[in-house]
Amino acid sequence: MADIIKDQSQKVGLKPGSYVFIGERKEDKVQINLLDYDEKNHEFCTIESIEEAFPYKNRKSVSWINIYGLHDTSILEKIEKQFDIHPLVLEDVLNTGQRPKIEVYDDYLFIVLKMISFDEETSELKIEQISLIMRENFVICFQERLGDIFNPLRKRIKEGKGRARKNGVDYLLYAMMDVIVDNYFLVLEKLGDQIETLDEEVLENASSDIVRRINELKRNFLFLRKNIWPLREVLSSITRDEVPNFRQETMPFLRDLYDHIIQIADTIETYRDLTGGIMDMYMTQMSNRMNEVMKVLTIIATIFIPLTFIAGIYGMNFDVMPELHQDWGYPLVLFIMAIVAFGMVIFFRRKQWL
Amino acid sequence: MADIIKDQSQKVGLKPGSYVFIGERKEDKVQINLLDYDEKNHEFCTIESIEEAFPYKNRKSVSWINIYGLHDTSILEKIEKQFDIHPLVLEDVLNTGQRPKIEVYDDYLFIVLKMISFDEETSELKIEQISLIMRENFVICFQERLGDIFNPLRKRIKEGKGRARKNGVDYLLYAMMDVIVDNYFLVLEKLGDQIETLDEEVLENASSDIVRRINELKRNFLFLRKNIWPLREVLSSITRDEVPNFRQETMPFLRDLYDHIIQIADTIETYRDLTGGIMDMYMTQMSNRMNEVMKVLTIIATIFIPLTFIAGIYGMNFDVMPELHQDWGYPLVLFIMAIVAFGMVIFFRRKQWL
Amino acid sequence: MADIIKDQSQKVGLKPGSYVFIGERKEDKVQINLLDYDEKNHEFCTIESIEEAFPYKNRKSVSWINIYGLHDTSILEKIEKQFDIHPLVLEDVLNTGQRPKIEVYDDYLFIVLKMISFDEETSELKIEQISLIMRENFVICFQERLGDIFNPLRKRIKEGKGRARKNGVDYLLYAMMDVIVDNYFLVLEKLGDQIETLDEEVLENASSDIVRRINELKRNFLFLRKNIWPLREVLSSITRDEVPNFRQETMPFLRDLYDHIIQIADTIETYRDLTGGIMDMYMTQMSNRMNEVMKVLTIIATIFIPLTFIAGIYGMNFDVMPELHQDWGYPLVLFIMAIVAFGMVIFFRRKQWL
Amino acid sequence: MADIIKDQSQKVGLKPGSYVFIGERKEDKVQINLLDYDEKNHEFCTIESIEEAFPYKNRKSVSWINIYGLHDTSILEKIEKQFDIHPLVLEDVLNTGQRPKIEVYDDYLFIVLKMISFDEETSELKIEQISLIMRENFVICFQERLGDIFNPLRKRIKEGKGRARKNGVDYLLYAMMDVIVDNYFLVLEKLGDQIETLDEEVLENASSDIVRRINELKRNFLFLRKNIWPLREVLSSITRDEVPNFRQETMPFLRDLYDHIIQIADTIETYRDLTGGIMDMYMTQMSNRMNEVMKVLTIIATIFIPLTFIAGIYGMNFDVMPELHQDWGYPLVLFIMAIVAFGMVIFFRRKQWL
Amino acid sequence: MADIIKDQSQKVGLKPGSYVFIGERKEDKVQINLLDYDEKNHEFCTIESIEEAFPYKNRKSVSWINIYGLHDTSILEKIEKQFDIHPLVLEDVLNTGQRPKIEVYDDYLFIVLKMISFDEETSELKIEQISLIMRENFVICFQERLGDIFNPLRKRIKEGKGRARKNGVDYLLYAMMDVIVDNYFLVLEKLGDQIETLDEEVLENASSDIVRRINELKRNFLFLRKNIWPLREVLSSITRDEVPNFRQETMPFLRDLYDHIIQIADTIETYRDLTGGIMDMYMTQMSNRMNEVMKVLTIIATIFIPLTFIAGIYGMNFDVMPELHQDWGYPLVLFIMAIVAFGMVIFFRRKQWL
Repeated sequence: MADIIKDQSQKVGLKPGSYVFIGERKEDKVQINLLDYDEKNHEFCTIESIEEAFPYKNRKSVSWINIYGLHDTSILEKIEKQFDIHPLVLEDVLNTGQRPKIEVYDDYLFIVLKMISFDEETSELKIEQISLIMRENFVICFQERLGDIFNPLRKRIKEGKGRARKNGVDYLLYAMMDVIVDNYFLVLEKLGDQIETLDEEVLENASSDIVRRINELKRNFLFLRKNIWPLREVLSSITRDEVPNFRQETMPFLRDLYDHIIQIADTIETYRDLTGGIMDMYMTQMSNRMNEVMKVLTIIATIFIPLTFIAGIYGMNFDVMPELHQDWGYPLVLFIMAIVAFGMVIFFRRKQWL
Repeated sequence: MADIIKDQSQKVGLKPGSYVFIGERKEDKVQINLLDYDEKNHEFCTIESIEEAFPYKNRKSVSWINIYGLHDTSILEKIEKQFDIHPLVLEDVLNTGQRPKIEVYDDYLFIVLKMISFDEETSELKIEQISLIMRENFVICFQERLGDIFNPLRKRIKEGKGRARKNGVDYLLYAMMDVIVDNYFLVLEKLGDQIETLDEEVLENASSDIVRRINELKRNFLFLRKNIWPLREVLSSITRDEVPNFRQETMPFLRDLYDHIIQIADTIETYRDLTGGIMDMYMTQMSNRMNEVMKVLTIIATIFIPLTFIAGIYGMNFDVMPELHQDWGYPLVLFIMAIVAFGMVIFFRRKQWL
Repeated sequence: MADIIKDQSQKVGLKPGSYVFIGERKEDKVQINLLDYDEKNHEFCTIESIEEAFPYKNRKSVSWINIYGLHDTSILEKIEKQFDIHPLVLEDVLNTGQRPKIEVYDDYLFIVLKMISFDEETSELKIEQISLIMRENFVICFQERLGDIFNPLRKRIKEGKGRARKNGVDYLLYAMMDVIVDNYFLVLEKLGDQIETLDEEVLENASSDIVRRINELKRNFLFLRKNIWPLREVLSSITRDEVPNFRQETMPFLRDLYDHIIQIADTIETYRDLTGGIMDMYMTQMSNRMNEVMKVLTIIATIFIPLTFIAGIYGMNFDVMPELHQDWGYPLVLFIMAIVAFGMVIFFRRKQWL
Repeated sequence: MADIIKDQSQKVGLKPGSYVFIGERKEDKVQINLLDYDEKNHEFCTIESIEEAFPYKNRKSVSWINIYGLHDTSILEKIEKQFDIHPLVLEDVLNTGQRPKIEVYDDYLFIVLKMISFDEETSELKIEQISLIMRENFVICFQERLGDIFNPLRKRIKEGKGRARKNGVDYLLYAMMDVIVDNYFLVLEKLGDQIETLDEEVLENASSDIVRRINELKRNFLFLRKNIWPLREVLSSITRDEVPNFRQETMPFLRDLYDHIIQIADTIETYRDLTGGIMDMYMTQMSNRMNEVMKVLTIIATIFIPLTFIAGIYGMNFDVMPELHQDWGYPLVLFIMAIVAFGMVIFFRRKQWL
Repeated sequence: MADIIKDQSQKVGLKPGSYVFIGERKEDKVQINLLDYDEKNHEFCTIESIEEAFPYKNRKSVSWINIYGLHDTSILEKIEKQFDIHPLVLEDVLNTGQRPKIEVYDDYLFIVLKMISFDEETSELKIEQISLIMRENFVICFQERLGDIFNPLRKRIKEGKGRARKNGVDYLLYAMMDVIVDNYFLVLEKLGDQIETLDEEVLENASSDIVRRINELKRNFLFLRKNIWPLREVLSSITRDEVPNFRQETMPFLRDLYDHIIQIADTIETYRDLTGGIMDMYMTQMSNRMNEVMKVLTIIATIFIPLTFIAGIYGMNFDVMPELHQDWGYPLVLFIMAIVAFGMVIFFRRKQWL
């Protein structure tokens, strides 16, 4: 739950635009990758310092700088100066509690996205903020930590297959967003599996552990919704042609991406409803069992309490109890007891409790 | 539940626009039908390969190519080249987890619909994605599997009855959508019957099986909603004249179709509410029964426990218990017991438990 | 519940615009009334065949043709030809499962309304579709069956009182809609009475029958909502001047009608909330009673079970039980029992159970 | 509850615009007040008949006619003729079941408001419809009964303090609305007190009476919402400059009034939520008590039932029961009983029931 | 709860625009601070009377007057005259029950904000209304009481660091709003901690105190929502360029602030959902325990009641009970009892109650 809001308190009182990284601090050196390509050539290298990337700024080829790790704020300061980025943009890059958003500046575009993955071991969702800055022929991508999510895309570019190499920087941006959105489907699939498992279990053995798991699932959907829904607005504003940085040729792809986001948002809502349905099933299951318990108690108690009373009567030690001294007393009492028990059973049958 | 989101994971990492069919793969050969007609002539045949249909492209008559089965992606590639369709369109045809949507391209129109039918045997809803591409005088319809749903429409065209033959390709598209939407009414009727059955059963015998069935019904409405609601937007955008491919003469029919969709959406919501009401009925029924069980237990226990206690007292073996040695002891005790029992019964009457 | 969606299945596969009446078929002959009036004269007659009404088409006076019964589709076909009505309009007239709607055609207007009445005998709501076609100086009204709802309006026209005679055909249309909407108030009043009755009963004797009645009431509101809410849009589009057929003089009346509809829609929502509140009251009442039952059981059981145990001890037949042979044994045990019972009572008092 | 919809049934069948008063009829004579003022002079009198007010029509000073009581429809007819008011307006004045609304006519403005007050004796909300007609320099105010709500305003005008005298008729209208809206705060305060009282009581003694009171409170909020919310639209349309009758100088005051209405609407919603929270508290309280009752029963029963069984065994009269004849039999059994009881207590401790 | 609506009743009947302070009255003298700065100089002082600030009105430097305490209305009257502020503005300053809002006047801007803080001692939220009036180069800030919230901002200005000194009065206004909004994050963090604590506790020991705390938390979110949500509209209208007083250079900062508000509003909603989830967990926990209690009772009672009955039979004193006189009678009965008990245990195992 701690993920849902990041600790902003250390920033209170600082001037706006201060660079304070609020994620987990890591000791590792920030790693920087550079991929530069045009239709004919491509070049990929890991660079030591961000300055090595600056000469690519004015080339005609598309350059993609990928920065893994946000704890070295000096890199950001250099980027701010070199590319003339508004300080608030880089503040947002560091503030990993951002909502997904798009901001259009005069000569660049700033997009914040959330990379969400399902951790198989802990069955928890992990989140990473991906910030993208796109200038004329340049994409700078900030990731919180090392990761290989964009590798298939890089491979496609290197191999020169598909549209990747032919299309410009806006297509690259689209392709990166597409990779992130495709990952949401993977996460939803895992959660869908969990729903199916719960759905089967809830009918078999309604252990109280199920409530905890249902609740966790609900929280996951809350978490997904919070991090994915704003993306709808981002893509909607792009497809409504409000963002000048995308060319008409890339539009069909972005519309397709928008469709995917809508589909994901739909699915999250449907899953929430399904989870709510499972909770209802569980509650009815519980109350059914309670009913059954009560019925067993009632049947046993209601049959034997009157019988025990009858036995109690003839256990009394009065001197004058004529029945006690008749030969037929004992069998008669047993017979009466049988009648009473039998009557009760019939009564319960009528009430459909048996 | 598995239908609600299709497995997109095999696509992650592939370039956008890759043709990967994510439905069930079938071994059968893809079957292709061709119906070509104008006001005077009509021609219907099953063709072996999609190439046979290409000559009809430039004819003035209306041609309707129907492709049953999506697993042979080579057909799609040929269509892409021949008709100059955007690769994303054909990717969407294959991705059968699409939401219903409309996409307007320069010289063609792409519509995705969901054909939903009620499987009498399993009482489950079956879904099939129908993708329609409409060019100037051409409709290509992709179905997931062989089916006879459009046969009455074909028959009407062949017999030349009604407007079908006289009107153009946009009317054909309307007629196909109309067939699909009419089928929704059939499905709703089946579900309406289920609601009525449940409604009667819930008052008679509230077996716990009913919860499962109510939940299943709820899911069906969720499923319908997910697959039918987006169609409202599709038809709304058509009737608001935003789609240039439809002529004014066809508009009243499309508005009528839009009315039907609104009516269906309304009915789904009403049915959801009714199902919720049945669930509430069930819950109250359950808690009523619980109350009744408790009352029986309480009445029996509360009457007999004090009596048994009295019997217990005179079952004690104290040497000095003067009452035991009186002649009137036993009858008096029995009389007291009767009084107590009678008092209890009166008490319960007053509380309206009896 | 069967009313909520009509059987559309017999129509599936037919061409759009086919005339199939989906209501209950009646054997009676369709009855047709004609009222023709201008400021000076008026004429009212029952006509044998629809053809008799055709000559009135070109008169300057206002003519109102009222057709009771929809099962004779030949009448509709004649009207279609004579007045040049779009076939879909007449299809909608027959399809009595329509939502209320307005359709503006070049030279006529088509309005579908729902006449709702409260059947005193069965306490059920009855519905009848009223379809109105208005041409220049002509109103055709289709009713499902014979009824006298418009009689006061006719009387007012005959007597020449009020505005009815002076104003044109648009005022007549308004007056007819006004009659129907006024009837909704009657229905709401009846349902309001039912709510008040339930509200009193629920506090007195919470019989399980109440749940059924509350549920029925809820369904009635669902039913009303479904059939009245779309009327808001109809009247809203008229008052926003989007429908050219109404003159400015009639506008204040239509705005007034719109206000009534809003008021009715408001009241339906308020009643739904009130009904929900009664259900909550019932549930708490139930659970209060359950609590009371449990308390009685607990008090009785908790007092007597320990006492019975004490009695049980001294009912044991051990040879060596010294207390049994003391003179003070029996009184002491009785005293101890009294103490225990008294302690329990105090305990319950403290817990505020007594 | 009877207030929520007024009896409209007596009007069904009458022509629109008929003057039928649907409120309670009172025998008293309708009282009419007249206040006429300009910056320098003012005149206040109670007039006998409405005709006496007509000469003020053409004066330059602001005139405010206040009519207490609606049962004398002849007054309305005179006003209709004299001031050329649309009959539907006066019909709405009489129909006290109106929603708050504003209607702009060519040369006058018609506003319906609801005066709501809290009756200290019955703790019920009372409602009165206030209808305001504003012409050039004239306000006619219809109240259902005599009341002193506007007296402070009149006093302010008489004393010539503040803006009241300097500003025109639109400011007077604003001031009247302001008085009514200020009263809503008083009502909300009373209901706020009730919420606080309930909130404290629910934790102390959850008597079943609380449910009734919570429900009543909920209904009051429903009632307030129904009667106050539409006022938002009224004032919103005024502040959006859609009503020409208000001058720019009065606008800040109207915007202020609009703010108040928004604040009231907000508070109603917040109070509804708080009331819902109290209901939840009550339900949990109830179920906590139920649990406690059950625990007491279970503890007592589970400790003593096995003990009683043991006592029962040695109360059996078998000839051969060797334990009975041992000296240590009785103490041993008592010891075993103590062990069992002790074990049970430990078991309950572990389960945290004790 | 008393905070949610302030006592407006003392104002009813007064003329609009009357200065009545409805907060708590304090005896202390109102303290006034003045900070005046331009890019080069700055001056900070505590002034004795508001008149001392008036000369700064026409200076080119930015002046920030901060008034702590609202109970001295003479100060407001002087400000009204000196700066030509509309009386309603100053009435709103005093009415501390305002919603956050923005009002644009010809030559000044009026903003109402809510400063919310978390009182560590009482764990309650405290609220203070901050009213800001911005003229050309002047900000007047009204606070309800002395506080140091703006001190870091003042320090930044004094030290001349960052943009504060270089930018104009609109940036100052932004910076003040930013301080207030940053504080919301602190409050949310505290509430987030409470949610996490509750979340852990609810699974361990579900004491009834938890309900009270959950309810309190819910109210806090209600309270936050009421006071923060309207700020969204305020900032949205600013960022949509509807407020002319802000320069383009300040816009990115305001958009950033708007993002923060959206993020806060999102988080409040998410927290509400989480709190609801905890309540559900609690309810299930409760009903699980109830079930467990019932099961223990049922198992014990159902095993021993029949056994006690058997013991009761052989405790009867009939003369003729042959079994009693057999040597194997006692062991047989014990054996039968063991069988019955064992059968019951197996029965419960099967039902998975053990």
